[in-house]
Amino acid sequence: MNIPDDLAGGADDRQVRDARIVLGCLVEPGSAALHRLVTAYGPVEALDRLTSGLESGPLAEAAALRLQGRSAAELAERLWERAARLGVRVITPESAEWPGHLADLRHISREGPSTIDRDTFPPQSVWLRGPHLLAEAVARSVSLVGARANTVYGAHAAAELGYGLAGRGWTVISGGAYGIDAVAHRAALAAGGLTVAVLACGVDRPYPLTNSALFEQIAEEGLLISEWPPGTAPFKLRFLVRNRVIAALSRGTVLVEAGARSGARQTLRRARELGRAAMAVPGPITSEVSVGCHEELRREPHEPVRLVASVEHVLEEVGGVGDLAPVPRGAQRPLDGLDPVEQQLVDAVPRRGSAHATQIAVDAGVSLRDALAKLPSLALRGHLREQSGSYSRPRR
Amino acid sequence: MNIPDDLAGGADDRQVRDARIVLGCLVEPGSAALHRLVTAYGPVEALDRLTSGLESGPLAEAAALRLQGRSAAELAERLWERAARLGVRVITPESAEWPGHLADLRHISREGPSTIDRDTFPPQSVWLRGPHLLAEAVARSVSLVGARANTVYGAHAAAELGYGLAGRGWTVISGGAYGIDAVAHRAALAAGGLTVAVLACGVDRPYPLTNSALFEQIAEEGLLISEWPPGTAPFKLRFLVRNRVIAALSRGTVLVEAGARSGARQTLRRARELGRAAMAVPGPITSEVSVGCHEELRREPHEPVRLVASVEHVLEEVGGVGDLAPVPRGAQRPLDGLDPVEQQLVDAVPRRGSAHATQIAVDAGVSLRDALAKLPSLALRGHLREQSGSYSRPRR
Repeated sequence: MNIPDDLAGGADDRQVRDARIVLGCLVEPGSAALHRLVTAYGPVEALDRLTSGLESGPLAEAAALRLQGRSAAELAERLWERAARLGVRVITPESAEWPGHLADLRHISREGPSTIDRDTFPPQSVWLRGPHLLAEAVARSVSLVGARANTVYGAHAAAELGYGLAGRGWTVISGGAYGIDAVAHRAALAAGGLTVAVLACGVDRPYPLTNSALFEQIAEEGLLISEWPPGTAPFKLRFLVRNRVIAALSRGTVLVEAGARSGARQTLRRARELGRAAMAVPGPITSEVSVGCHEELRREPHEPVRLVASVEHVLEEVGGVGDLAPVPRGAQRPLDGLDPVEQQLVDAVPRRGSAHATQIAVDAGVSLRDALAKLPSLALRGHLREQSGSYSRPRR
Repeated sequence: MNIPDDLAGGADDRQVRDARIVLGCLVEPGSAALHRLVTAYGPVEALDRLTSGLESGPLAEAAALRLQGRSAAELAERLWERAARLGVRVITPESAEWPGHLADLRHISREGPSTIDRDTFPPQSVWLRGPHLLAEAVARSVSLVGARANTVYGAHAAAELGYGLAGRGWTVISGGAYGIDAVAHRAALAAGGLTVAVLACGVDRPYPLTNSALFEQIAEEGLLISEWPPGTAPFKLRFLVRNRVIAALSRGTVLVEAGARSGARQTLRRARELGRAAMAVPGPITSEVSVGCHEELRREPHEPVRLVASVEHVLEEVGGVGDLAPVPRGAQRPLDGLDPVEQQLVDAVPRRGSAHATQIAVDAGVSLRDALAKLPSLALRGHLREQSGSYSRPRR
């Protein structure tokens, strides 16, 4: 437990933090409209404008509706109390443990027709459970995501990667879902490593319930985090909004197993949009839950997704110098140390009996001079046997 | 059987063809030195210079050794006789059925230190068994290659691709080896399609022996072809030399399954060097014989190898207009026709009981105006139930 006391929120900028935490409660995370407002006025004044009636429009109306007649100060007080009661922390961009690279999220908006693609801005606040500083925990991290309905193969791949990355000191980030996510978290814990579950609901009611024991272990040894305040239910859209944070927190995202329609593909897309390493694990072409991975790997070069088949491959994408994956041996040297003429001579020696240099040269299609020059050396090196100028194959 | 009589070799350029066939017998195929000589002098004079002592060096010496004191005319006569006796054809670039795109082979030389990489020039002649014209047979063709020691998965993938391509009128080219090659040939035959086996030995003694029944069927329904004259044994180097022809004959090569050191990877490399489509089938990362495929798929964008998981994917690489593979549905529309605000509203309706518009708007984080505008439409479309202004989830 190395959490400095001041991170609980006693610093000079308390007013700013309060505003952020209230904004994070009143407005659904990622909002482009809120981001513009906060950028223009700062969090304190932005909150004031939203709650005083100075701003109009859906954002202000929704925020006012959620305030339910309370003052912003009252709500802030209640949120702090709730955090203390539940034993959770809440941080904002002003906190020392806020990961600076979340700010990259401002750049990925595509201004598409859907709010899903427009509302990709950074969180105002993040709620946490666990004995680690978020910025430190994610400094060297990889996101492993994938299908809920995974196969045994996918579980094996997620476990291999999660265990191997955690064992090498990399934090494994995922979404806490059934299937691939849960396997990745568990593998990291099994390796004695660090894992971060980024939830789409309150950290006090992690979803799904069947992963409760896992969430408790993560809260004790890793980090459970969420943009949504305690008590928030996991709505469908929130998973998609949350995905941008999984992609932004790490140096790269690996899609382990995914059907054509898997939401995990959206996380990989966010990673690409953010300039993070985007990776996918191949699988059998007969598997429905590798279709999404294969489609990602078929993207054109301007939307690169790298095939990864091992921890080393992942480290090559996200790691620094010294993490290059060794290329499997072979292919470059198909002749096992013989030059092509030597190989052709060896092959031209009959499988039974023996032959003189001339016949070997004829069959090999090389000059007698080359045959006479190379056959003795081949015999000397044990590739052939020589007796009275006649060559045969060595006994095995 | 639609083989014109003149293709057996009775045309005006008989002298040129004879020279080519003799050159194809005296010199190992692919030779850069022979290619230079033939380009400079034409086949007839090139042969004359090689056999008369006008040329010196290893090429001339090896050729003279193989001639074994006979004249070139005598050897030509013997080769034609042998062809007639065995019921095989032999063609040269002068033949109507010679595939013109074999000439692309002249461009792929890298002038590396190894003769394997230097000797990548077109055949002087090709020996054939089978009731088809080679140029027609390979006009729309794909090469399927892979490991000898394949897995059940690899066999399944090769069979799917071979059967599907042949069924759509594409010729399947392969090397006649154990494993993936044999499966690809058999699948094409099973589909009633055309298949071409490119051998590294004489067409009268196809290797391996255990594929004999398959070779007989290919000779009857497809094509068995080889650059080497009848009687030639399959040396190790010859498989590698032969690979360039498998790559050159087709519009693209698919690596179905391959270990790190598989010779089939060299065929894929030749396809790339020739500007043909280079493709690989992914597989489980736990499989030793998918390692080569995955390494190929990990190449940098300037050495493109495309992941293919279906016949449609292959056709997209080699086919013309109308052959584009359909992208698996999904991913683009994660919300099943609801816009994000609608989805959020639906999710905010409690799972048990009902709620009024205001509470739903609060939980969804949207304005009351949006909630009131959209909730009735959602009820009308059956996504929600409405009773006295209160909304609940529809019964399943």
